[in-house]
Amino acid sequence: MVDPELKDIVQFDRKKPDVYGNAHPKSLLRSIMEDGEPLEKLTNQHIYSSEQFDRKTLLQLFRLAAKYEANPGRFSASLQGQILISAFYEPSTRTRLSFESAWHRLGGDIMSITDRSTTGIAKGESLSDVAEMFNNYGDCVVLRDSNEASVKEMMDSLRIPIINAGNGLDEHPTQALADLYTIFKWRPDLIEEPPENPIEICIIGMPSKMRTVRSLLKLIAKFPLSFSKVTIVANEKESAVFSKGQKEQLTAAGLNVEVTNAFSDAVKLADVIYINAIAWEGNTFKEYGAKYQLSNRSPLKPQAIILHPLARGEELCTSLDDTPHNWYFAQARGAVFLRQALLTCLVRRVERVLDII
Amino acid sequence: MVDPELKDIVQFDRKKPDVYGNAHPKSLLRSIMEDGEPLEKLTNQHIYSSEQFDRKTLLQLFRLAAKYEANPGRFSASLQGQILISAFYEPSTRTRLSFESAWHRLGGDIMSITDRSTTGIAKGESLSDVAEMFNNYGDCVVLRDSNEASVKEMMDSLRIPIINAGNGLDEHPTQALADLYTIFKWRPDLIEEPPENPIEICIIGMPSKMRTVRSLLKLIAKFPLSFSKVTIVANEKESAVFSKGQKEQLTAAGLNVEVTNAFSDAVKLADVIYINAIAWEGNTFKEYGAKYQLSNRSPLKPQAIILHPLARGEELCTSLDDTPHNWYFAQARGAVFLRQALLTCLVRRVERVLDII
Amino acid sequence: MVDPELKDIVQFDRKKPDVYGNAHPKSLLRSIMEDGEPLEKLTNQHIYSSEQFDRKTLLQLFRLAAKYEANPGRFSASLQGQILISAFYEPSTRTRLSFESAWHRLGGDIMSITDRSTTGIAKGESLSDVAEMFNNYGDCVVLRDSNEASVKEMMDSLRIPIINAGNGLDEHPTQALADLYTIFKWRPDLIEEPPENPIEICIIGMPSKMRTVRSLLKLIAKFPLSFSKVTIVANEKESAVFSKGQKEQLTAAGLNVEVTNAFSDAVKLADVIYINAIAWEGNTFKEYGAKYQLSNRSPLKPQAIILHPLARGEELCTSLDDTPHNWYFAQARGAVFLRQALLTCLVRRVERVLDII
Repeated sequence: MVDPELKDIVQFDRKKPDVYGNAHPKSLLRSIMEDGEPLEKLTNQHIYSSEQFDRKTLLQLFRLAAKYEANPGRFSASLQGQILISAFYEPSTRTRLSFESAWHRLGGDIMSITDRSTTGIAKGESLSDVAEMFNNYGDCVVLRDSNEASVKEMMDSLRIPIINAGNGLDEHPTQALADLYTIFKWRPDLIEEPPENPIEICIIGMPSKMRTVRSLLKLIAKFPLSFSKVTIVANEKESAVFSKGQKEQLTAAGLNVEVTNAFSDAVKLADVIYINAIAWEGNTFKEYGAKYQLSNRSPLKPQAIILHPLARGEELCTSLDDTPHNWYFAQARGAVFLRQALLTCLVRRVERVLDII
Repeated sequence: MVDPELKDIVQFDRKKPDVYGNAHPKSLLRSIMEDGEPLEKLTNQHIYSSEQFDRKTLLQLFRLAAKYEANPGRFSASLQGQILISAFYEPSTRTRLSFESAWHRLGGDIMSITDRSTTGIAKGESLSDVAEMFNNYGDCVVLRDSNEASVKEMMDSLRIPIINAGNGLDEHPTQALADLYTIFKWRPDLIEEPPENPIEICIIGMPSKMRTVRSLLKLIAKFPLSFSKVTIVANEKESAVFSKGQKEQLTAAGLNVEVTNAFSDAVKLADVIYINAIAWEGNTFKEYGAKYQLSNRSPLKPQAIILHPLARGEELCTSLDDTPHNWYFAQARGAVFLRQALLTCLVRRVERVLDII
Repeated sequence: MVDPELKDIVQFDRKKPDVYGNAHPKSLLRSIMEDGEPLEKLTNQHIYSSEQFDRKTLLQLFRLAAKYEANPGRFSASLQGQILISAFYEPSTRTRLSFESAWHRLGGDIMSITDRSTTGIAKGESLSDVAEMFNNYGDCVVLRDSNEASVKEMMDSLRIPIINAGNGLDEHPTQALADLYTIFKWRPDLIEEPPENPIEICIIGMPSKMRTVRSLLKLIAKFPLSFSKVTIVANEKESAVFSKGQKEQLTAAGLNVEVTNAFSDAVKLADVIYINAIAWEGNTFKEYGAKYQLSNRSPLKPQAIILHPLARGEELCTSLDDTPHNWYFAQARGAVFLRQALLTCLVRRVERVLDII
């Protein structure tokens, strides 16, 4: 006989909590008509910056991600025979596992580099030579490097696609793609032209310092009619909140951008609240907005959703986890499918998954 | 012409030494009638402690392991499409490769984390959030952590199964399962109710400090009629040899447990000698029983077998390697098949390998 | 609309530069008649030293490599079900990824060990026990270790094949195989008996200290009629340039070996120039020949080709990359196919890829 207390401890439930709203991939799927042409054009592009995507390509990427998410087991051989070089010179588990899971689920193989000091770079090898090596050994590269310039330097010599998975403070485009994908899954009506009910988004973070925020703002700027207001909540003066020209680019795209440190006032009005406290600067973390905290006592609109790129600390209280505001776990889950969609296009396997070629 | 001396050096033999006794998986297979029901019940359990297994489940696990060991190539697609998250926050090669080999042989994919400092935990992320991330990226987790509480903390949030591959000083259940599997392969008659010829087991080690020993004793306690005596050989006073309540639990289960430091006397009478010298405490090794050594000059019964969880040091002399007492290599080899059996059940693929469903 | 400057940055070309001469695998294929027998004999050999190969075996290995290179996608299931243990105790990315890519392309699975400190060796475990563990978990081992004796020590206990991927200063046989494969792809006529137009090879490096050079010289010595002259360019006295007996072995095999520090004079006359500046000594790099540099201003014969095991530093100027002298990238690319050929033989899968069995 097994101790019943132990039995309780070891039993677990596979069912996802209801807050995850799994109907939404299908809603988005139905809202976008399939068009493979923008995706075909991705095949000879490196993924460097959110800026490089146009609206049409984004919608088709999101549609393909929704197709993967709605039919998780169907495409398990799409990347058969393809090798991913998973190069995380800056420590990460979350993003690395997200990419590796995406690639494995589609039947591909992976070679991981998780320690910069084992590479030829440690021997003084040029990034151009490292790129040439990658050309010979794999089909696609994912790179995270605290050195902001590395990915661009490698792009010059690469003849296989590379995805920037975070380059210093600069960008993290696939995270932003996953974030916007999540917003559109939640509200597919926002992709209409124009949407009847645009939303207000509140970003608690530092656009000058957080690559996830920088990338997300660039994507939001491609749907200016979907976002009636973008409120940045930060406890710094505006000249520090944005990097040079950053705010101007957003307003030039048609966004209505404001900065405030009035946390509660901003949160009260937001439909989407995006929060992040950590910027990875050089070889260490720096925390921003330490006084801001979202919890189940925050003055949220009943239908508001919360996003966070994770890992989170005290800024996003666990008291929100079991509420309908929690879309940050769905955001992480959807990121795998978004990456699947992007990777499939980059290695020229998209014709295997489209209905119409 | 190639230098004949070099030719000798590079030639090798694939044949296993006879001492490995490969008939034994089949003997155990024949001794247990297949019954899938206890294995089906494993599908929603984390594997945390040896204690959670009952006799019926153990025998069916051992039968399935024997089936895998007797037919190594047959089930190579059983885990196709499944992803294992292999998280070894405490350094290990042996256990990690054992699990990864088991998983690869059955056609599954693996994502490895071998450096705690690259994880979000380094960023202060909660284990609960790490568990939620694992829920989204994989199908099964194997975790080794010198922090004893980590695995249980993760179990609260995991919706995929986790196997405790060693949590601090506490337990290492799959090692114990492999050990008992090896004993029953050697003597299938011991599973009879009651066995005609129970055996004496001598454990040279520290039940209070060695997780492999702690887990093994719990399993032995489920077959009290198979073990007429359990002798612990240790060079410490009894209050240090056992942790609080540990000896009482064993005697309450019906085991006849003794402690001695008379090494030779104990070894002389043992049918199975289990030896281990190292406890992993915190972030370093501590050696126990430094004066005990088994060698081919030890006063062993002719039919006695020796087990060791490995890695070994001077406590188990290589002079025993080529003797019939050497069952420690078979123990390591069998561990892969035992893990295959357990993993197959946990990810709900057991119906692919049972004859009767 | 996407910024056209950004569009330019992210676009890339998949086409290889012409200097890579992709006709050459087929020329070599046609020059050697297939004979599986020497390859079958490789199945019970560890790959320890260049010395262990005879001419016949080398030509068949090169033929199989050429077959793989000429038909890259055809044999993608050759290693299905096989597990490679990729053990790089000495840091490396290039050689590790080359082996792992080779193995993945043929459908096999991989377990990587990239940190010596996580292994049992750190716990004082013997290499013999590590070998026994590998016997139980994988089908083939690749090992790089700054400790020169490790690979041989493991060979004593291994019952699966091991490839020496670099043991201290001693050898790196598969690199040399790849180098000679490249030379014969460039000039298949050199394998005739005798060749009408043997070549002069100039090696800028230290035969006493560089394992890639040591292994290559041993292979060159098996084709003494193909190389009319071997010139070592080094800035040290001859007693330091060669290790004890090394030069004598080469001349005894029929090679015409000279040492000089007159860099330009040697380069002027060479058909193949092999250059390397780094020796990995203990746990660090040492540079040799710092005053030697090849660039597009070097006095090269118009048809001369340059080889370098990579990673390179200033000794091989990037001004040569876009010239027909650049065969060092083709050398790296071909190394994958050469390793595929060798690995296929070692794990007894060669009957799957030969036309005549």
